[in-house]
Amino acid sequence: IMSKSVLILPGDGIGPEVMAQVRRLLDRIGGFSLSEGLVGGAAYDVHGTPLADDTMAQALKADAVLLGAVGGPKWDSLPFADKPERGLLRLRKDMELFANLRPALVFDALAGASTLKTDLVRGLDLMIVRELTGGVYFGEPRGIEDLPNGERRGINTQVYTTSEIVRVARVAFELARKRDSRVCSVEKANVMESGVLWREEITKLREADYTDVALSHMYADNCAMQLVRAPKQFDVIVTDNLFGDLLSDCAAMLTGSLGMLPSASLGAEDANGSRKALYEPVHGSAPDIAGQDKANPMACILSASMMLRYSFDMAAEADLIDAACQDVLNAGIRTGDIVESGMTPVGTVAMGDAVLAAM
Amino acid sequence: IMSKSVLILPGDGIGPEVMAQVRRLLDRIGGFSLSEGLVGGAAYDVHGTPLADDTMAQALKADAVLLGAVGGPKWDSLPFADKPERGLLRLRKDMELFANLRPALVFDALAGASTLKTDLVRGLDLMIVRELTGGVYFGEPRGIEDLPNGERRGINTQVYTTSEIVRVARVAFELARKRDSRVCSVEKANVMESGVLWREEITKLREADYTDVALSHMYADNCAMQLVRAPKQFDVIVTDNLFGDLLSDCAAMLTGSLGMLPSASLGAEDANGSRKALYEPVHGSAPDIAGQDKANPMACILSASMMLRYSFDMAAEADLIDAACQDVLNAGIRTGDIVESGMTPVGTVAMGDAVLAAM
Ligand SMILES: CC(C)[C@H](C(=O)O)[C@@H](O)C(=O)O
Ligand SMILES: CC(C)[C@H](C(=O)O)[C@@H](O)C(=O)O
Repeated sequence: IMSKSVLILPGDGIGPEVMAQVRRLLDRIGGFSLSEGLVGGAAYDVHGTPLADDTMAQALKADAVLLGAVGGPKWDSLPFADKPERGLLRLRKDMELFANLRPALVFDALAGASTLKTDLVRGLDLMIVRELTGGVYFGEPRGIEDLPNGERRGINTQVYTTSEIVRVARVAFELARKRDSRVCSVEKANVMESGVLWREEITKLREADYTDVALSHMYADNCAMQLVRAPKQFDVIVTDNLFGDLLSDCAAMLTGSLGMLPSASLGAEDANGSRKALYEPVHGSAPDIAGQDKANPMACILSASMMLRYSFDMAAEADLIDAACQDVLNAGIRTGDIVESGMTPVGTVAMGDAVLAAM
Repeated sequence: IMSKSVLILPGDGIGPEVMAQVRRLLDRIGGFSLSEGLVGGAAYDVHGTPLADDTMAQALKADAVLLGAVGGPKWDSLPFADKPERGLLRLRKDMELFANLRPALVFDALAGASTLKTDLVRGLDLMIVRELTGGVYFGEPRGIEDLPNGERRGINTQVYTTSEIVRVARVAFELARKRDSRVCSVEKANVMESGVLWREEITKLREADYTDVALSHMYADNCAMQLVRAPKQFDVIVTDNLFGDLLSDCAAMLTGSLGMLPSASLGAEDANGSRKALYEPVHGSAPDIAGQDKANPMACILSASMMLRYSFDMAAEADLIDAACQDVLNAGIRTGDIVESGMTPVGTVAMGDAVLAAM
């Protein structure tokens, strides 16, 4: 039986206040051993680094990590290596969380919140699987160099190996099997050799192990278009780290309710069938509303629900949380980001109250 | 006085039929010396390469190049170096067309065609300036290599120098001066050193030469979101080759009328104040409707209008074409891609007729 140790990293901005609601919920469910640490600007302010080695070690030992959000204007002018984001990137890299699952889901009660015409997004349920530990985010060589002519040159390297592509593609195919069995692989194979390799390896993998799943290929620019044109055409999208960054944010915004979207970042399965995992809301640290009891805690709550589902095999409890969130929305209880006229506007804590009550 | 030599490269799919309408229009205006060549799959079929050296030489000598579209399933399985796209990429690189201007404009008559709610896009007029001859599209090293362990590795290199950044940024600042004097520079400086350099160099350039233009910075993922959330917040966006590829296609789709959008790709000004330039519609070769008199020629016609404006200082004639297109739209004359009930559906040639008549 698993120990269910969870490291909570609230981070910056609205991170701590949305995480506070998650703690209440996990306390209610019970059975977890929770510890807490610092990441991002909050860690920099105390330790002079966006992720202390000690916190990194704790994350590696925990069964799962729950993260709030990192970043804010306070730390914008820090050098590259000290920026809040580096803490998050180190967690991803050192935990080898190569598969980032970003559902873009439109809740029935919120279909009108999208900037897209309602018919185009009602019922939207797409899953973006983004490679998270490779590509241009981590490729070497990288840096800025001085040239003899007095100019400077900035370099980053986009690099993928067969095994990096195959392991994330497997996650996508496995997920598709539990959904509509359709995977769309996205790259720029018409321009980048790394995209040619991506396409070839995924095609081979499907032929070897997943002929029951339909595979299509799309260029990343076309995908950006298609997401805006007809997002419901997709089931599972699998793509690299950088394209995944843009496309998943685009897809998230299509739902019109960023404050509702969770994400999971998963590592490889070990011999016991368990895997390292980090869960976090898709939204950022929203420094403009931090500390004002305005933030929507739902995305963080639903991230905890993903944790129960993927890390702890607690589908029943996860269903309970998801249903409670639906009920609260259907009852018209809304934080500021998703409120409409005729609804009941509430703050962060009251939203936590409502979800707990609905459970 | 300029010689006004124009090389016409119709390319593949619907390219030839939309270009035929442009030829009628240029003949009407008169005074051009037009020649025609092959590019893309059409060139491959004849010469075994997507751009023959001879055509490249002609393009370098012409005062402007007008291109239709390249690509199609017929050539999808060609090796990387023979693909239709390589013809276009060689034109851009050898002509040093470093600044790609992609307006995303919503025509009043077509505001309802967007998948976004009409209020969010009505009156939209944003300009994306995309760097076009650098970055990961052309950076070395690149390729696919075999690893000792039997795996393969795909590599591309994102690289920018000071002067590459500065010259495209200048184009953006100059354009902004003729518009709303706001430039938003887009990169991933939180993750990529090439983005850090990009941000620093543009900031310095503004301080040196463009303090009258407002400059803001945005991460590319956030930009993908903001385009969907509130596209009218932008005036001019300047970004690198790859981000520009995705973001300009996303922005184009926001207008709901891809078949209406032109683009210009410009090189450096020479001593006479003239610059190499290529004009092409944003839409692709649309092989599914090619040869059926269904394609919308407006984007190609408006690309020719951009040519008159930017390459030949013929603002009056360009205004005439733009106004004619507006009139035709307002009269309810529509090709299939933009038709609505109550309108008059027409084919490619009849649309050309209508624009000519309206002039
Ligand atoms: C904060 C930043 C480093 C990060 C990324 O670029 O991956 C974020 O945008 C995300 O998508 O999680
Ligand atoms: C055809 C392709 C090579 C090209 C690109 O990626 O630049 C196209 O998508 C574009 O945006 O003009």
